[in-house]
Amino acid sequence: MKIAIAQHNYHVGNITANTKKIIESIEKAKSQSADIVIFSELAICGYPPQDLLEQKGFIELSQKAINNILIHTQGITAIVGAPSINNAEEGKRLYNSAYILQNEQIKKIVHKSLLPTYDIFDEYRYFEPNDIPETVEINGHPIAVTICEDIWEEQPVDQPFAQSRLYKKAPMKKLIANQPELIINIAASPFSYNQEEKRKDILRRNAYEYQLPLIYVNQIGSNTDIIFDGASKVVNDNGEIVAQLKRFEEDFQIFSLQKINKIKPIKAYEGDSRIKQIHDALVLGIRDYFQKSGFKKAVLGLSGGIDSALVAALAAKALGGENVHGLLMPSKFSSDHSVKDAEQLAIKLGMTYNIVPIKDIYSSINEAMKPVFPTDNQFDVTEENMQARSRGLLLMAYSNKYGNMLLNTSNKSEAAVGYSTLYGDTNGGLSPIGDVYKTDVYKLCEYINTTEEIIPWNTINKPPSAELRPDQQDSDSLPEYNVLDKILFEFIERKQSVDDIITQGFKSEDVKKVTRLVNTSEYKRFQFPPILRVSSKAFGLGRRYPIVAKFE
Amino acid sequence: MKIAIAQHNYHVGNITANTKKIIESIEKAKSQSADIVIFSELAICGYPPQDLLEQKGFIELSQKAINNILIHTQGITAIVGAPSINNAEEGKRLYNSAYILQNEQIKKIVHKSLLPTYDIFDEYRYFEPNDIPETVEINGHPIAVTICEDIWEEQPVDQPFAQSRLYKKAPMKKLIANQPELIINIAASPFSYNQEEKRKDILRRNAYEYQLPLIYVNQIGSNTDIIFDGASKVVNDNGEIVAQLKRFEEDFQIFSLQKINKIKPIKAYEGDSRIKQIHDALVLGIRDYFQKSGFKKAVLGLSGGIDSALVAALAAKALGGENVHGLLMPSKFSSDHSVKDAEQLAIKLGMTYNIVPIKDIYSSINEAMKPVFPTDNQFDVTEENMQARSRGLLLMAYSNKYGNMLLNTSNKSEAAVGYSTLYGDTNGGLSPIGDVYKTDVYKLCEYINTTEEIIPWNTINKPPSAELRPDQQDSDSLPEYNVLDKILFEFIERKQSVDDIITQGFKSEDVKKVTRLVNTSEYKRFQFPPILRVSSKAFGLGRRYPIVAKFE
Repeated sequence: MKIAIAQHNYHVGNITANTKKIIESIEKAKSQSADIVIFSELAICGYPPQDLLEQKGFIELSQKAINNILIHTQGITAIVGAPSINNAEEGKRLYNSAYILQNEQIKKIVHKSLLPTYDIFDEYRYFEPNDIPETVEINGHPIAVTICEDIWEEQPVDQPFAQSRLYKKAPMKKLIANQPELIINIAASPFSYNQEEKRKDILRRNAYEYQLPLIYVNQIGSNTDIIFDGASKVVNDNGEIVAQLKRFEEDFQIFSLQKINKIKPIKAYEGDSRIKQIHDALVLGIRDYFQKSGFKKAVLGLSGGIDSALVAALAAKALGGENVHGLLMPSKFSSDHSVKDAEQLAIKLGMTYNIVPIKDIYSSINEAMKPVFPTDNQFDVTEENMQARSRGLLLMAYSNKYGNMLLNTSNKSEAAVGYSTLYGDTNGGLSPIGDVYKTDVYKLCEYINTTEEIIPWNTINKPPSAELRPDQQDSDSLPEYNVLDKILFEFIERKQSVDDIITQGFKSEDVKKVTRLVNTSEYKRFQFPPILRVSSKAFGLGRRYPIVAKFE
Repeated sequence: MKIAIAQHNYHVGNITANTKKIIESIEKAKSQSADIVIFSELAICGYPPQDLLEQKGFIELSQKAINNILIHTQGITAIVGAPSINNAEEGKRLYNSAYILQNEQIKKIVHKSLLPTYDIFDEYRYFEPNDIPETVEINGHPIAVTICEDIWEEQPVDQPFAQSRLYKKAPMKKLIANQPELIINIAASPFSYNQEEKRKDILRRNAYEYQLPLIYVNQIGSNTDIIFDGASKVVNDNGEIVAQLKRFEEDFQIFSLQKINKIKPIKAYEGDSRIKQIHDALVLGIRDYFQKSGFKKAVLGLSGGIDSALVAALAAKALGGENVHGLLMPSKFSSDHSVKDAEQLAIKLGMTYNIVPIKDIYSSINEAMKPVFPTDNQFDVTEENMQARSRGLLLMAYSNKYGNMLLNTSNKSEAAVGYSTLYGDTNGGLSPIGDVYKTDVYKLCEYINTTEEIIPWNTINKPPSAELRPDQQDSDSLPEYNVLDKILFEFIERKQSVDDIITQGFKSEDVKKVTRLVNTSEYKRFQFPPILRVSSKAFGLGRRYPIVAKFE
């Protein structure tokens, strides 16, 4: 029995485009004599569809799409992820389902049992869990069709306070009673830099525990902030990975069920380095965000600093340097090298750019506010913010006039401690590096410079500064980034308490200051652009804190 | 048996302050010889605590608070809502619980069975549902202690596509077997203008169905965007409401269990008008947002238009007119009356204000961008936005210099169709009227003017305009507000499909245009300030859409 894996980039909500891809792959699978072709979780509508699922019109369109696909299934079985309606009087309106389509008939609809409802996942918001998992017989072979979390009843956890078993049931323990010959798992498993290792563990453990080959079908592509990396896999009944589809690209491959256990395992399979993974994910994330929202060109402020340099380099990779425009907006506090470094970068990346000093705008704001401000007005954070907001305003003027989407250039360390100006450098349609700590910003720049100097070494090597007042350096008010980032990681990713972090050996005053800054800058992050998620705990939908909360 | 209801305003995350209130009310109840004193759901930590629940330090502090309360329970039973740890190996880490504290002992911990996970609720994100509800015996009386949703197994729905029975179980159906003498329901039931009627129906139906008196304890106060209106109730065993605590205020009352069924029902109890409810909720919401985040003073832009006038009036009511500052920022497109109307309002409300024309800032931006813009540059939306962003910048300068929090003045109709400038008039720490449709903005102003002219009638009666270009009126590009708001309500609150709305008799072109504008302006709302929720479907946490979604 020949089984095709179709690993696609779905556009969330764009049922028409997704259906077209699915039908094309069914035809391709038929032309290559496949018996089964498998698509990933919620392939019809893309993931995560969020509250579109609550719209009747959306579900109707999804059902119509299934009917359109159906007529292409003569002589083949297609397994397609889609929402289905729960017709019972009790329970949520929908199921998260795998449609088994065969010879123009809906042969069966398998519902997901375990519904992830943590971090970025909200599945119990929409779906009723399935209590009676059943195997499906395809061409005489009983198969355990599972949906993503269904095989994650026990999962590795990053946080000491989290549970590893979130569910009281384990669908595979029931399915195994029907003696399936194969486990299929259709997934929408988002990328984070430590997810691939976890995934492999889960897949190998399931195949080994049940002594069954396992075919895992993920999707690729980015929908707003959530990036999918593909890497669909085939695992033999000894728990060894024997094949893997491309990462961050669409792919299509066919395997023979009978031969899976005879394929030589991928020897000591090593993933890409953490930094390469993040790099590739961000490039895909930027490209898809633009393509899926109908933009071609980007604009960003180039300060000569490392954050904007990294975003420019990633954007040039994703969109082409000619589609990225830079505004260099020096003030009297900008260092001598800032403009030079920024120009060197823009030229290297093939970007267009303008130099627009903010001096006169800054003066006119001060002039306008003179009657309002105290007569003995002192330069303080107000005036620092005025500069950042003048730049934000010019960038948006460019964006509006030419239709380039503004890219935000804040990193995760800054976003965490609120070291940014709301409506100034927090502006943007997308934040590409808002989930990348500053120490990783350096590593990404070095990675990009592996073979040649793309980002000026001067930009990488100079001490980081916001350049909003004379001789300002980031380390004036914050611990050095190598300390700051470790404290932030323990607090944000690992959710450790202040006491626990201090016990690890960090200075008490540093830990208290940093965690307090994180807690009190929630209001800024609330108005942040969407941030491409590359870690296990990004700011955004996966991290929800009440702004007025008082907890220190 | 004397039962006290303690209806408090809890500050989310502020366990110390909440615990103090709880202890004070226990002492008060003891001094008035009450046998039981009841606090609302998650009283210890406030609602909604969101991801604070995932922090070990937060749960430890909550457990300590229970122990601090415990020593005050000699001679009384206190029922206190708090998270508790699920010690089982499987399932979520926590329960949403009612602690029954009696004579310095934890007599029992009752866990919530039905976990709302829809709209603004994310309870299954944190909590394991309880499968075995049991009654509690207090002073020889078996009592069914339930937590909020536990008695909402069947609920009225506003949307035709939604389910009325979201759960496969009904805790009261099990609890009734133990022959309780009373139902207690501790709640964190947020305000929306149609919630009070639904609540009364649910409470009456439960009391009547089980032929038991029912005591319902809600909380009041606002945490970020979610407002609680209190109105705790006592219902007799015939399903009649016999007592109700204050709305939008803390309250404390004592009832005799034996006498509940003898109290005369509140005759034909009528709630406040919808507009008065919204008014009172918004005033509380503003006051609490400032108080809980440590702010005293507000600033806002006064355009002479109706939206900023309403926000100013609400803020003056919440904070005192002397704590609200207005900036009047006319441009050459401002109408003659704009400044005059705004000044009249500020004076009436006892506000301070400044007039800061934006002419020179606007010119300096144009001057700076001249080399960047096309040589034959035409006035377009870019220049409109420049004006709005200049105003946003000046308001934030004032906010930074004097520590006044900026209030956003957008209404729900604008926010829905994206009729606003990002980083311009979308700025603010809080959006008081972002969940109020324009037609209700008018009604609120008229309500405020019931006895005297607070908001200038000229402001209310002139045609609405953004005044960003000559002779601009809102109706140039949108249907009239009385049509627009109805279409928006059907699409947003009722989640009707485009076809369904057209079938209701609206013009096809209007419906298509309006729904398309809603779908394509998601990116603006993503960066909006928190919006005080007064409807059943507000923009914010309760409405989640993918920005890149393609669905029309």
